[in-house]
Amino acid sequence: MRDAYTDSFIESAQARNNIFHDLDDTKHWLKSLQEKTAYKVEQIPLEELDHWYFEENTGNLKHSSGKFFSIVGLDCRPVYDAAPWQQPIISQPEVGILGILSKEFTGVRYFLMQAKMEPGNINKVQISPTLQATYSNYTQAHKGKTPAYLEYFLDANAKVIRSQLQSETGSRFFRKFNRNVLLDVTSEVEVLPGYRWLTLHEIQALMALDNAINMDSRSVLSNVSYSGADPGADAGASEFFRSASCDPGAAHKSQEELRDWLAAMRHKFVIETTQIPLRSEKDWVRDESGIHHAFKNYFTVAGVRVEAAEREVSSWSQPLLKHEGLGLAGFLCADIGGVLHFLVQAKAEPGIVGSVELGPTVPIFDYHARADAVNKIPFLEYFLEPSDAQVLHSSIQSEEGGRFWNLCNHFLVLKLPDYKAIHRPERYEWMTLEQLQRFSQGESMVNSEARTLLSCLQYFH
Amino acid sequence: MRDAYTDSFIESAQARNNIFHDLDDTKHWLKSLQEKTAYKVEQIPLEELDHWYFEENTGNLKHSSGKFFSIVGLDCRPVYDAAPWQQPIISQPEVGILGILSKEFTGVRYFLMQAKMEPGNINKVQISPTLQATYSNYTQAHKGKTPAYLEYFLDANAKVIRSQLQSETGSRFFRKFNRNVLLDVTSEVEVLPGYRWLTLHEIQALMALDNAINMDSRSVLSNVSYSGADPGADAGASEFFRSASCDPGAAHKSQEELRDWLAAMRHKFVIETTQIPLRSEKDWVRDESGIHHAFKNYFTVAGVRVEAAEREVSSWSQPLLKHEGLGLAGFLCADIGGVLHFLVQAKAEPGIVGSVELGPTVPIFDYHARADAVNKIPFLEYFLEPSDAQVLHSSIQSEEGGRFWNLCNHFLVLKLPDYKAIHRPERYEWMTLEQLQRFSQGESMVNSEARTLLSCLQYFH
Repeated sequence: MRDAYTDSFIESAQARNNIFHDLDDTKHWLKSLQEKTAYKVEQIPLEELDHWYFEENTGNLKHSSGKFFSIVGLDCRPVYDAAPWQQPIISQPEVGILGILSKEFTGVRYFLMQAKMEPGNINKVQISPTLQATYSNYTQAHKGKTPAYLEYFLDANAKVIRSQLQSETGSRFFRKFNRNVLLDVTSEVEVLPGYRWLTLHEIQALMALDNAINMDSRSVLSNVSYSGADPGADAGASEFFRSASCDPGAAHKSQEELRDWLAAMRHKFVIETTQIPLRSEKDWVRDESGIHHAFKNYFTVAGVRVEAAEREVSSWSQPLLKHEGLGLAGFLCADIGGVLHFLVQAKAEPGIVGSVELGPTVPIFDYHARADAVNKIPFLEYFLEPSDAQVLHSSIQSEEGGRFWNLCNHFLVLKLPDYKAIHRPERYEWMTLEQLQRFSQGESMVNSEARTLLSCLQYFH
Repeated sequence: MRDAYTDSFIESAQARNNIFHDLDDTKHWLKSLQEKTAYKVEQIPLEELDHWYFEENTGNLKHSSGKFFSIVGLDCRPVYDAAPWQQPIISQPEVGILGILSKEFTGVRYFLMQAKMEPGNINKVQISPTLQATYSNYTQAHKGKTPAYLEYFLDANAKVIRSQLQSETGSRFFRKFNRNVLLDVTSEVEVLPGYRWLTLHEIQALMALDNAINMDSRSVLSNVSYSGADPGADAGASEFFRSASCDPGAAHKSQEELRDWLAAMRHKFVIETTQIPLRSEKDWVRDESGIHHAFKNYFTVAGVRVEAAEREVSSWSQPLLKHEGLGLAGFLCADIGGVLHFLVQAKAEPGIVGSVELGPTVPIFDYHARADAVNKIPFLEYFLEPSDAQVLHSSIQSEEGGRFWNLCNHFLVLKLPDYKAIHRPERYEWMTLEQLQRFSQGESMVNSEARTLLSCLQYFH
């Protein structure tokens, strides 16, 4: 005899078969979208960008609507012992929304993710949040379509699981914040073409691939964790979003000691900044290839023309930041008292309003070309030369493809055989993932690269 | 026989007699400084300000150095059910430093405070932090003297007790942050004229007076608390700076529930903002009295000329924001389960990067003139009409006198006989002081008026 419970279970299982997919199928889906997405991105001189212009007095690069973002000059003067510098930086005063809808189906929690094209993506399409919007999208500054699922995030009665402001890459964005929002929905949600419900386990499994899960997804999901011990099991709603708990006695230092240390680092490693006219920047030049440093290969503000069908508007041109080579987000970790600890750096960046956030042990651009920096950048040698460290994770992950052109970082997590062999300068501290995660529950405490580490948390348990 | 210990104790006591003062003496000292401080502040047309000019294309009011602050236009569009508006706002992208040196003398902790003149102070001189500096001070933008005690805050080996970014009045400053720094010093500190070592108990006692402790001092000291139960005792260093602990079972809601509520409010009550040219603002006009609204009496951007001997430079002119009447920072509180709970509002302000911070139950400008708003502003009637509520605290406290002209708020804390009589809209939540204090350990969670409440914490224990 079938009872109502069994009926509902069978119905749910049938529904699941229509809505849900196995991991291999999702990988195949993503790959086929990457292959068949027809659009082209070509570099053009900045002067030829539609609706973008150089402001007369400053030489800053702006959009004619006054919205989106602009490229301005930044004068950077560390108050600690480091040389001052000037650089172009992205100014985008409005707060973006990175939103993910989540829903529980028969006891398993799913996240609605989009396979989304961005012009700077090296592989065109990556798995993105349900909604990546700026308030310009809301108010239709570019007169395109309304972003899909926007209504859920504007709903005054939405059930908010997480809503946090987090910084964006502080070396390239000036005080840019995104609101990372996770909503719980119980109503029926239409799954539009290009969207799929994925479990956290599936999303994290996709992080083992290169450039599959985009920066914004990693950020939103960075402080979501399982309370269950089995990484294969997907937890239900109630236990899902509690912070990870760990035996405080097992950590090398207490959360309070780490907080005091971070406060001290935030006091010490301040970078004083002033926005200046881009045209007055020392050693930065503008020519047909874009805006770049006259002598050093940092990055280029380049113009691109994009033609595509999938976006809100079908073709456009915009500036992107172009970098040479592959970046590194390298983490050292080691067992301390039987618990895995990560060597976290209190990293100062000019675009971070509080100057310092917690980041990887070694974050640098174009790292294969930086062998000359081994004596200047602590711990870089571990990531350049073979050692007795064990590789716990190695993947290539992309920076935000709406602002960066093909910029990828190598996320490399190395486990050292003995933490005591490490001489640790004051800017570095050992902490467990749970401790880092606890910091990430505050706003602007953990930087985007370290949030990526947290987004693939379960692999390190 | 006197041993070394006794000797050192007697020496310390003698030193104390030279360095420390009783509370009445300090009150007298402050009063005499307020009376004898010789300077004058007079209003002048904005066009006559030295080194300030209206930018040609925008009409924004700027300093010729490009530093200090500017007055710009802000277009404010709530995404919730509220009308949009435009207003002038203070733009000051650099992070200020509000720093206090603290030191333990024979088991008692003291804070080095300055009796400092600001042009907008209604009583000229108020008790200020050891250092109120902007980075313009560091780099000598106005070519005056270096601020006193700056070297302690630049010292890379300083012992940092607290270092937090906190917002400034979000209705008048656009995304302004100050670094609130508390340092522990063990070395000898010269006490310059105009400075005194005060205990937290003395500082809090001075808060019972009107306009004695300035806004910046209140902010820095807002999450410093006694762990000791006796409000008369001044605690030593080690136990001083731990967060207040309370029996979690005694609170109406758990910290986690409150955090989730705040996240939901931060998601819902977003004010979308765009900087716009001041001259394009609807309904704001500029005439000989300054920049003001054409029809409503919000505030005026007024020019003032200041002549004084005590500041880094001896005379100057600058804009100040001039408000009519007295503001209100009103808190309702009530016993819930034997513990005092405060009715805190999740308050949206256009200048707060995350839109919402925790604030007073009722924060409004010019409140005696607002009887007509009783039906629109929840709980305002408690502060306008006599009721059976008990007055726990009533004092007048000034807003920052470097930006506001004679702007004072009435800090009024009323205890209701029964919390259940309150109908509570979703933007209001009951929390204990300890819970509010825990939020204040994060950055940009608790607004400046609510931080003032925390700065006189002990009176509510």
